[in-house]
Amino acid sequence: MTEPLTYKEAGVDIKAADTLMERIGSLASSTHTSGVVKHTSRFAGLFRPDFEGVTDPLLAATCDGVGTKLLVARDVGRFDTLGQDLVAMSVNDLIVLGARPLFFLDYIATGTLDVGQLEQLVSGIAAACREVGCALLGGETAEMPGLYAAGDFDIAGFAVGLADGTWLPKPDTVTVGDVVIGLPSSGIHSNGLSLARKALLERGGMKLGDQIEALGRTLGDELLVPTALYVESVTALLQRFPFKAAAHVTGGGIAGRGRALLRDGQELVMEPVVDMPAIFELIREAGKVSLDEMARTFNMGLGFLAVMDADAAAEVMTEIGAPWRRVGTITAGSRGVVFGNLSA
Amino acid sequence: MTEPLTYKEAGVDIKAADTLMERIGSLASSTHTSGVVKHTSRFAGLFRPDFEGVTDPLLAATCDGVGTKLLVARDVGRFDTLGQDLVAMSVNDLIVLGARPLFFLDYIATGTLDVGQLEQLVSGIAAACREVGCALLGGETAEMPGLYAAGDFDIAGFAVGLADGTWLPKPDTVTVGDVVIGLPSSGIHSNGLSLARKALLERGGMKLGDQIEALGRTLGDELLVPTALYVESVTALLQRFPFKAAAHVTGGGIAGRGRALLRDGQELVMEPVVDMPAIFELIREAGKVSLDEMARTFNMGLGFLAVMDADAAAEVMTEIGAPWRRVGTITAGSRGVVFGNLSA
Repeated sequence: MTEPLTYKEAGVDIKAADTLMERIGSLASSTHTSGVVKHTSRFAGLFRPDFEGVTDPLLAATCDGVGTKLLVARDVGRFDTLGQDLVAMSVNDLIVLGARPLFFLDYIATGTLDVGQLEQLVSGIAAACREVGCALLGGETAEMPGLYAAGDFDIAGFAVGLADGTWLPKPDTVTVGDVVIGLPSSGIHSNGLSLARKALLERGGMKLGDQIEALGRTLGDELLVPTALYVESVTALLQRFPFKAAAHVTGGGIAGRGRALLRDGQELVMEPVVDMPAIFELIREAGKVSLDEMARTFNMGLGFLAVMDADAAAEVMTEIGAPWRRVGTITAGSRGVVFGNLSA
Repeated sequence: MTEPLTYKEAGVDIKAADTLMERIGSLASSTHTSGVVKHTSRFAGLFRPDFEGVTDPLLAATCDGVGTKLLVARDVGRFDTLGQDLVAMSVNDLIVLGARPLFFLDYIATGTLDVGQLEQLVSGIAAACREVGCALLGGETAEMPGLYAAGDFDIAGFAVGLADGTWLPKPDTVTVGDVVIGLPSSGIHSNGLSLARKALLERGGMKLGDQIEALGRTLGDELLVPTALYVESVTALLQRFPFKAAAHVTGGGIAGRGRALLRDGQELVMEPVVDMPAIFELIREAGKVSLDEMARTFNMGLGFLAVMDADAAAEVMTEIGAPWRRVGTITAGSRGVVFGNLSA
């Protein structure tokens, strides 16, 4: 006799989902700012924005994932760092528009719910949200047997921020003579991992568990260093020194994102990048990747760029200084980025 | 000699992504409401909310996917219907709180970018956004070789709506004697597809291409009927008849979502569901699924529920009528849902 079919047998474990929901609930609560409106419905989160001091309140919204960085996490078996990557990928985008992050939501899809693994993920998300003052307002955890293998998962994040329409970047005011200042990256961040994995693991024959002398840690730990959160540094800058244009250095790399700051007839001449994380040289050597391709793919040590006139940039260096540094100058030229120590 | 490695060889096609971005851009523009603020940055979308007539403006936010319904789409090879599912899963959640959808963002992750497939997906998203007056404000398309097989993909949607803190559902005012009104579902919607697929395809030995007489179409076409959009019907209701509590009938099925409307000592006695889509009986028979399990998994013909006092519900039936229908009554009892024609 055929047994009656249940949802659990079809691969979906409602009880594990309920357990996870409880744990996620308390992690989310730890991020709740004064804007979060408590209510009992599970259908949506509610947030009361505070528009004080904002002349023309605009909502800024973005969403992103962490790309194949999660395959590194899966293969290393560490899930506590990806949450910061996920939050950083979105909130760093918001502050390009001067928008202060208000709230964040996450989507997590898995083949089989692994409560411990997902709790590590969400703990990382919550910690990053707390660090940038952004409420984890909701999310969805989907168990999708048949799409994801057991142990596989994907994550996406979504952030909403508050911008002021009376102050937005004005990229059309960027002119020759302007200076680009930047913030150091913490490493590879969340872009170019497909190329990095191919270069290091396939071409280079390295293993994620290998201790690499130049890195001072295992390859896996290096690749999993979370994407830097730039909200605090950029907010502190904006309070005194508005920028004309800015970029979070993600897909397209330092070359692509640098180029997007320019107008026709402008060239960005980069100064030699100091303290470039050693991982980039390791990838270049292992994959025999050209410097152009490196620059089109990776942040090469700079995770955030901002353009301002030379006087303002000089003042930033005097009055704020680190972590901001002067990284390049806009000159007349054919639209592109010219590198110092990268173009050797 | 080893060829230099490029990002394209690592499985990521930036040019295909650029082509797709252009097409997505014009689809997104077709959804743009007056709130969308045009600007040149690709880092985030900007939206100016209109608070006119809203006493205590609150932002409501939610995110969701479409679950394993996308495996049906993949196997049938049709991608034009999932977009509405994705939008409906989120915006139907927002209106449970009386929140009017403002904007939507989508996350699409694939193994290999198939521009035609993704364009079908985004066309569906854009059409649904237009239908509910919600701007498609941004999104992310990620190519993740190594996580998704070629042809596989996942999608997630995020929606933000505008609610009024002076009017929110008050589920603690639900009392014995209240009436539940509901909106018909268009079919299976986006929940329970794992169980449905197992019952129909594995246990029942059916194929997605089979023409099923009881359905009047192929099994695949039936399973892909998009989730109904309830924004218009609920908005029209709320303008005159506020509800005490409501539910978008998704995970947990009509039993789980119905039960969540109740307080201790209350029971929801459902009237026989009229015009129940034939797909549910087909699943029940093929999988020998118990009626309890069916009701805990599927919407069983009702996609949205709202609770109000009996007089108000009677007025709704007289003054608004279809698509709203009276579907149940709240009586004294042990917290649960009792079905008419489902409990035979």
